[in-house]
Amino acid sequence: MPMKNMEKILENREINSWIRNFSRSPHQIHEPHQADAELIEIKGDDSHLLAVTIDTISDEITAGLYHDPFTMGWVTVMSSFSDLAAVGADPVGIVTAVSLELKRDEKFRESLASGMAEACRQLGVFILGGDINTTQTISLTGCAVGFVPRNEKMVRVGCQVGDVVFLSGTAGWGNALGLVRLSKLPEEYFPEELYRPRARIKEGQLIRRYATCCMDSSDGLLITLDQLLRLNNLGFVVEADWKKILAPDVYILCERAAIPRWFMAAGIHGEFELVFTVPSEKVQPFLQAAKDIGFLPIELGVVQRKAELTLVLPAGKKADIDMAPLRNLWASGGSDLDRLMQEHYACGRKWGLE
Amino acid sequence: MPMKNMEKILENREINSWIRNFSRSPHQIHEPHQADAELIEIKGDDSHLLAVTIDTISDEITAGLYHDPFTMGWVTVMSSFSDLAAVGADPVGIVTAVSLELKRDEKFRESLASGMAEACRQLGVFILGGDINTTQTISLTGCAVGFVPRNEKMVRVGCQVGDVVFLSGTAGWGNALGLVRLSKLPEEYFPEELYRPRARIKEGQLIRRYATCCMDSSDGLLITLDQLLRLNNLGFVVEADWKKILAPDVYILCERAAIPRWFMAAGIHGEFELVFTVPSEKVQPFLQAAKDIGFLPIELGVVQRKAELTLVLPAGKKADIDMAPLRNLWASGGSDLDRLMQEHYACGRKWGLE
Repeated sequence: MPMKNMEKILENREINSWIRNFSRSPHQIHEPHQADAELIEIKGDDSHLLAVTIDTISDEITAGLYHDPFTMGWVTVMSSFSDLAAVGADPVGIVTAVSLELKRDEKFRESLASGMAEACRQLGVFILGGDINTTQTISLTGCAVGFVPRNEKMVRVGCQVGDVVFLSGTAGWGNALGLVRLSKLPEEYFPEELYRPRARIKEGQLIRRYATCCMDSSDGLLITLDQLLRLNNLGFVVEADWKKILAPDVYILCERAAIPRWFMAAGIHGEFELVFTVPSEKVQPFLQAAKDIGFLPIELGVVQRKAELTLVLPAGKKADIDMAPLRNLWASGGSDLDRLMQEHYACGRKWGLE
Repeated sequence: MPMKNMEKILENREINSWIRNFSRSPHQIHEPHQADAELIEIKGDDSHLLAVTIDTISDEITAGLYHDPFTMGWVTVMSSFSDLAAVGADPVGIVTAVSLELKRDEKFRESLASGMAEACRQLGVFILGGDINTTQTISLTGCAVGFVPRNEKMVRVGCQVGDVVFLSGTAGWGNALGLVRLSKLPEEYFPEELYRPRARIKEGQLIRRYATCCMDSSDGLLITLDQLLRLNNLGFVVEADWKKILAPDVYILCERAAIPRWFMAAGIHGEFELVFTVPSEKVQPFLQAAKDIGFLPIELGVVQRKAELTLVLPAGKKADIDMAPLRNLWASGGSDLDRLMQEHYACGRKWGLE
């Protein structure tokens, strides 16, 4: 696997350093980093893979991103199912580990549970069971499981030059909420209830019939593209049309808070859209099939040979943007908002983004 | 399901109050509380069930039970696989969510990882993937998945009067460590490295061919029996032969610390043995098959119609012990060791235990 650029990202290095401690299952069909959910061969079933994923929500809460327990519960469920969506899985269900501080009262618990229940209802899935604990710091873990038809599995690698890059829906919600919270803007700039990202299970089940690679946008759109290009050792040419890419509420927030729009694609707090590539000859049948289920993916650009993320700016100018410094700054200094904003502004000037 | 006594236990009430918020999957083959791992029907496979479980280790660490990160990693892996063992599953693997405080250094991480890796090696299983986070309080979650032959699945309900009750191996390790830690006895009384409880995967795969119910002893032996009797609305007659039941190191600790031996079966910090019942006519073939794989289960007693845990004391006297008050004290005041010890002594006097 061509991964020469993977280690330039602190988070990838940290993951690699951790997993070096463990042997890999001989039944796992992909390498580390290569899939949103783990895909495992099933003894006695040649036509399916087991998909399993785990995700903890804790620092998002202690950092103050989510105030409403409903959001916390919602995200706990959606984030795990989003990983299943990105591998094209048919979900079986989720188990959850809910660790709460003693101080959390019945009202908090009920709202947390109703966020989890409502997320499940919207996806048509079930909480199968779980673990409840009392701890010093809130920690909410979801582990979703499902099955993927073996010949339609999706992983993060496999795109080819010329493939068309799509996004399953408008993005930027996660970074909009992040911006409002970290810069302590009034709630009305981006009310928390606008942040209800949905896992794209149904869409993933369609996309898996056409896509050559797929990853969810939970780390933000540009970071997702950056990770995909490192994993594939290919690049993307993406039109920097923020009006098309960002959700209207996010776009409006940028105007109102006088924040460059591309920041909403650059931050690390994403949502659960799918970023995926479709071979050019399959684009028309894919779009037709998508339309048939009321799904309108956004065309972002194409896969290029050069392993760079190339943004096509409004005036037709192009900018190769290397997300590594910003990604690494998020990893090492995510709590220093001033520094982060300065670096984003500096990159914007360098790249000609506004 | 006869569960009239379930709600007398605070923990059961808490779980019931939590799960009332959620709909149950139509593909789940058991009711809440009835199985150590969730058992789910698989579309297109009539002969297997999917088994999945999740377990978080956090308060055990902040309460000071484990000092060595190797233990923390070991228990994270073993506790999830123990749930799989108790339903008789063939394991597929585990995903883990590791949330550590910033202060934890590389040495800590390596030792934690090596505890996880060694536990996997001993069980012949693999860590499939996971999530790493930085948080304010350590939290380690394991989610193990496996498959169970449908006609050999084990749940916690199903035992019949006259079935023989077994324990897969000597117990008390968990409460021995708990006692030493909470009462701040010197490490040499029960060195932490003695606490290396093993998930009984291999044994579970054998037991599933014979057992009528099964549960692991992760909440301690007597609490496990108490929960089983409430779920089955039947009781157990168990010989109070602590020399047979407790591990030698645990027995020695009791002598040395002048602690009644039954305390080591009564506390809430257990290990990962299996408590299970076998119909009397199957006991001989079961014991023969067990012997063939070098597995020597301990016979505890029999299932009785009266829904009580009846201990047969050395002098032949019998005592019906109701674990509810002690269980509820652990749940509500687990940090007040003096109070806990007093109540245990009081119960011991009442029941004629020493």
